[in-house]
Amino acid sequence: MNKEFNTHPHRRYNILTGEWVLVSPHRTKRPWQGKLEKVAEEKRPSYDADCFLCPGNVRANGEKNPDYKTPFTFRNDFSALLPKGPKGAVNEGLLKAESETGICRVVCFAPDHSLTLPLMRVPDIVRVIQKWKEEYEDLGSMEDINYVQIFENKGDLMGCSNPHPHGQIWSQLSVPVEVQKKSAHQKTYWKKNNRSLLGDYLKQELELKERLVLENEHFVALVPYWAVWPYETLIASKRHLQHIGQLNSEEEHAYAEILKKLSIKYDNLFQTSFPYSSGIHQSPTDGKNYPEWHFHMSFYPPLLRSKTVKKFMVGYEMFAGPQRDITAEQAAETLRDLPDVHYTEW
Amino acid sequence: MNKEFNTHPHRRYNILTGEWVLVSPHRTKRPWQGKLEKVAEEKRPSYDADCFLCPGNVRANGEKNPDYKTPFTFRNDFSALLPKGPKGAVNEGLLKAESETGICRVVCFAPDHSLTLPLMRVPDIVRVIQKWKEEYEDLGSMEDINYVQIFENKGDLMGCSNPHPHGQIWSQLSVPVEVQKKSAHQKTYWKKNNRSLLGDYLKQELELKERLVLENEHFVALVPYWAVWPYETLIASKRHLQHIGQLNSEEEHAYAEILKKLSIKYDNLFQTSFPYSSGIHQSPTDGKNYPEWHFHMSFYPPLLRSKTVKKFMVGYEMFAGPQRDITAEQAAETLRDLPDVHYTEW
Ligand SMILES: O=P(O)(O)O[C@H]1O[C@H](CO)[C@@H](O)[C@H](O)[C@H]1O
Ligand SMILES: O=P(O)(O)O[C@H]1O[C@H](CO)[C@@H](O)[C@H](O)[C@H]1O
Repeated sequence: MNKEFNTHPHRRYNILTGEWVLVSPHRTKRPWQGKLEKVAEEKRPSYDADCFLCPGNVRANGEKNPDYKTPFTFRNDFSALLPKGPKGAVNEGLLKAESETGICRVVCFAPDHSLTLPLMRVPDIVRVIQKWKEEYEDLGSMEDINYVQIFENKGDLMGCSNPHPHGQIWSQLSVPVEVQKKSAHQKTYWKKNNRSLLGDYLKQELELKERLVLENEHFVALVPYWAVWPYETLIASKRHLQHIGQLNSEEEHAYAEILKKLSIKYDNLFQTSFPYSSGIHQSPTDGKNYPEWHFHMSFYPPLLRSKTVKKFMVGYEMFAGPQRDITAEQAAETLRDLPDVHYTEW
Repeated sequence: MNKEFNTHPHRRYNILTGEWVLVSPHRTKRPWQGKLEKVAEEKRPSYDADCFLCPGNVRANGEKNPDYKTPFTFRNDFSALLPKGPKGAVNEGLLKAESETGICRVVCFAPDHSLTLPLMRVPDIVRVIQKWKEEYEDLGSMEDINYVQIFENKGDLMGCSNPHPHGQIWSQLSVPVEVQKKSAHQKTYWKKNNRSLLGDYLKQELELKERLVLENEHFVALVPYWAVWPYETLIASKRHLQHIGQLNSEEEHAYAEILKKLSIKYDNLFQTSFPYSSGIHQSPTDGKNYPEWHFHMSFYPPLLRSKTVKKFMVGYEMFAGPQRDITAEQAAETLRDLPDVHYTEW
């Protein structure tokens, strides 16, 4: 890499979305007089009678959760998307709109209210991955579901209103804009080279090593060259898979392992239960072929300097484009050097 | 408008960026158990000895502010962009980057530490607008400045570390991605119709009236059909201007007036000093002609239901695309019905 980029402002290009991020490596010394986030650090009980997601409890809509032992999925009681709606309603011209339908589900990762991914056992994370697979296939096979968005909002800083370990799945008729961008760029590369864009990128990163965080036989976790959030990471399968449904059982295990290790590193970074949004990007489920798609997951964590100081994506970022201070290489080095054992066990 | 869109999930298209927003009007009844923001409501003094921006005070870098009486601009002490750097350094291939240069400035709106735009007198807001004009022209005329981003982050919820009334200007070599999107869509429309895209849109909105918030002889403030943030608004000039430099003195006054009225409504909404990021979008300054560009300003406020509950753009929004609950029409009606007098004077 051009060494000048370690110390001078520059922009980097996201090969998956075609968008640029402004990097200001000289700016890490800026003092912070702004907002300090409140951190809730109480230890949670394994069962909370007031939690909508704990086994056996009654939810907001009056339904009772089963006494589940393994990951449990249900229809979101306040779904942003509904399965039925006025079919094909449209508005044309400058006020352009169309009706949208879909299904929103909640996935409880584990019955134990006190857990989080980094604290779960690898075999139990494998079960979460298997549930994601099952949901991707179940929802994806429905006629009006053309994309399945699997994600997790962790921590109240990320708008998560319940600390019980869980994620969400929003699946819908149209293919969302962020996925469209990645489809387009992967497709252009595939047509030209007949190879996976992300696969070629991974190869380069595995040689260079400076942005790697973790690696095992089947998966890589790294800070992408074009990372936007301070400690953003990307997990990708080494094998060129289009979607989570194609993982074999060895890969499921390797994925669970890297998820656990990465989330432990995150918790260790500021010695707090690390907030983030994570999400899986994969091929649409509209029945077409997407040989260009390379399955991957991203973590977008908001924290910047400590457990109370986050990066604000505001002003310039909203009107112009994303901006970061520490470089991807610095972030990767920091994460790489963190212990693999959770700080609560030090 | 298709009436079904008042009650059913749908997506709306942003004619300026080409991107969609998911609207879930049925979802406004969702209970909120999540994060409550802390609100600092202390009345501020007119002068604060510890403020870096008050007249006569010494800033972080040791420089002393003049005893300014009207808007005052200085170079940002922690600029994300620097005027000098390795010229034209590039990285090619999948790790694509290029060096970036620019100038970041801070604009103090007024000497009085206790003020905010809604509390300022119209003639003093005119002075802020004249300062923005001056800066756009000064920076824009420099050889390596091809875009001038004027913005304000207000409130600590928006990452603003100092309550002194001020905004920022980041100007740079490359044209940022959000501006590129708007350039492209305005250009396509201009080529086809030889009319301003935003101008035609404004005409339609002025007839329909359901998304209007404020109007005067030269300006319109409305909740755009494709609004993302709950109470997002757009202010546009009725005359087809490419940039702020073209405002005549009558228009400057009308702009100041609508800015004051809109920000009073915002403060009145939840009876708090309303947090937001605002920014001006206008033609690049790379010396080319941009007849398609129509100067406008947007407000992106994070609050959703009260002064302590904000909308989180996380999970689904980060991985798929923006989502909102209340419709643009509901938001516009609420804002329209609010008093024009600041709540502190009720
Ligand atoms: O420049 P400031 O006010 O220190 O910083 C604030 O605005 C900048 C521009 O929108 C952002 O990059 C920062 O994340 C935010 O905290
Ligand atoms: O569905 P929840 O957890 O109530 O809500 C959270 O996640 C959603 C999906 O990312 C967002 O739209 C909401 O703004 C956020 O608060």
